[in-house]
Amino acid sequence: MGEFDLIERYFRQPVRRAALGVGDDCALLRVAPGHQLAVSSDMLVQGRHFLADTDPSALGHKALAVNLSDLAACGAQPLAFTLALALPSADPLWLEPFAQGLLALAHAHDCELVGGDTTAGPLNICITVFGEVPASDGRSQALLRSGARDGDDIYVSGTLGDARLALEAMRGQWPSLPAALHAQALQRLHRPTPRVALGRALRGVAHAAIDVSDGLLGDLGHVLQASGVGAELQIAAPGRLMACGAAALDACVPPRHQLACVLAGGDDYELAFTAAPGQREAVQAAAHASATPVTRIGRIVSASGVRVLDAHGAPVSGDWRSFDHFG
Amino acid sequence: MGEFDLIERYFRQPVRRAALGVGDDCALLRVAPGHQLAVSSDMLVQGRHFLADTDPSALGHKALAVNLSDLAACGAQPLAFTLALALPSADPLWLEPFAQGLLALAHAHDCELVGGDTTAGPLNICITVFGEVPASDGRSQALLRSGARDGDDIYVSGTLGDARLALEAMRGQWPSLPAALHAQALQRLHRPTPRVALGRALRGVAHAAIDVSDGLLGDLGHVLQASGVGAELQIAAPGRLMACGAAALDACVPPRHQLACVLAGGDDYELAFTAAPGQREAVQAAAHASATPVTRIGRIVSASGVRVLDAHGAPVSGDWRSFDHFG
Repeated sequence: MGEFDLIERYFRQPVRRAALGVGDDCALLRVAPGHQLAVSSDMLVQGRHFLADTDPSALGHKALAVNLSDLAACGAQPLAFTLALALPSADPLWLEPFAQGLLALAHAHDCELVGGDTTAGPLNICITVFGEVPASDGRSQALLRSGARDGDDIYVSGTLGDARLALEAMRGQWPSLPAALHAQALQRLHRPTPRVALGRALRGVAHAAIDVSDGLLGDLGHVLQASGVGAELQIAAPGRLMACGAAALDACVPPRHQLACVLAGGDDYELAFTAAPGQREAVQAAAHASATPVTRIGRIVSASGVRVLDAHGAPVSGDWRSFDHFG
Repeated sequence: MGEFDLIERYFRQPVRRAALGVGDDCALLRVAPGHQLAVSSDMLVQGRHFLADTDPSALGHKALAVNLSDLAACGAQPLAFTLALALPSADPLWLEPFAQGLLALAHAHDCELVGGDTTAGPLNICITVFGEVPASDGRSQALLRSGARDGDDIYVSGTLGDARLALEAMRGQWPSLPAALHAQALQRLHRPTPRVALGRALRGVAHAAIDVSDGLLGDLGHVLQASGVGAELQIAAPGRLMACGAAALDACVPPRHQLACVLAGGDDYELAFTAAPGQREAVQAAAHASATPVTRIGRIVSASGVRVLDAHGAPVSGDWRSFDHFG
């Protein structure tokens, strides 16, 4: 116990929806009748997912955001989460802002911290998140990776590639990146927005969905593989898919690097999803209802693999998937 | 991905009860009507919870066992679990036996691996386990820490103190411990038995329960605090509560060290619980039905704190809670 009593001080929350929260052997959760439970677990390790000097408030936000993003991709409504935390020491200067960033996002999504574990050890943050999805007669309304169909439109939410741009800027790749643009990209890296409301609004509209965490091509690839289809993407002006905007970017980042960021940047936590062309109005209505921009970027085809096309429909070549640093 | 494709090879299981298992953004779980979900999460860190040379098969067993033990303490029936794993490298010589030990225990309890995460990093094992507890009209049958009442009997399941005896033997504290006795204690340290069937059988019989992971006095203390009561324990022959047995132990371990192991050893993963004296037959029936030995060790009193009494009812003094190494 000892120093880890501190944890209780920072993380104990009054129980609201859960039947029983932090402090017994188990937390008890009610799942509403006619619903299934969606569960996802992510582990964040220092040096791999974040740097030692990352703002702890942003880290608390991001640790939960990446989990909520998984719920969003299934169309699930967040319910609760557990937090397991290994810490080298119980430093209030770290714990207080970490808890603040974590719990602020939790409250924003009405997602209750119901339990977990703390231990001494190399910094490691493991969150398991629980959400609800309606299911009637055993038929779940969850959005899956396996539902994409030949002819579907392909969409992405929000913006892509900004987190990678920020990372490369931190590494000194873009010395001429204006400070305002750099700050905007950093915000996307450190405080991703899980698209929970959009995911929910897409239930019954989208055929398949996934959250973009490892880069659009890689994650879309999981959808294509699970669905047994391929894709054609048409990304004429990649900068228009980035938060920083094409006009500002064109002055300092070559278009092929913008495209690399968009296609394979990673750490975006946007949704990529497919829907029948007949659902275009419904998709826009879902985007509107959830106040989340959505962009149509291509279509599902029967032939496997992904072809990236330019504004004139000509194939763009590039070994996007294995792109590890900029050339 | 790359080397962590190995993980899929070792951990992917066919989906049985869960609606959707490893491989989508979320796992989907059905919770039976009239039931609540019990959730617990434990993180095991090398150097703190186990040594670098711990047999990976035993470690796989133990990582799940300590979580199942939390379900047992709530009287929950195991359903499923997620596994998040940080590994310095994807070594098949470690992963294969780890997965074998983990999944063997999972199968024995019909508890399905439904998802998780893997990453490179200092070795860290985080399991979140899900179980079901009947609940009708919002009234849960879960065993809680807060239900102990003045006059209740206090019981423990199985045996206590053996894991600590093994740990001290490994540290060279008991050079004269016979090999067979050492092996028996080591087995208890490395392959604890979660008392799932007993926990289930105690629903509606026990007033309060907890699993003994940090030592009997410490964990019983949580029950006393949550219930606003105290306890008197009468442990005349501590060796009779240990797997090794009093006769064998008396020849090589002084009684006061046996008592220290039993009261504050830790790593036992037994259940400590209370029940009304009128339930003694029901408790024995639960023990019999679950094939789990149960020993009555004292009673709940109204005065706070714990008094430990000897065979003649005289108080035994000792600073058990802070016992960190043997004197």
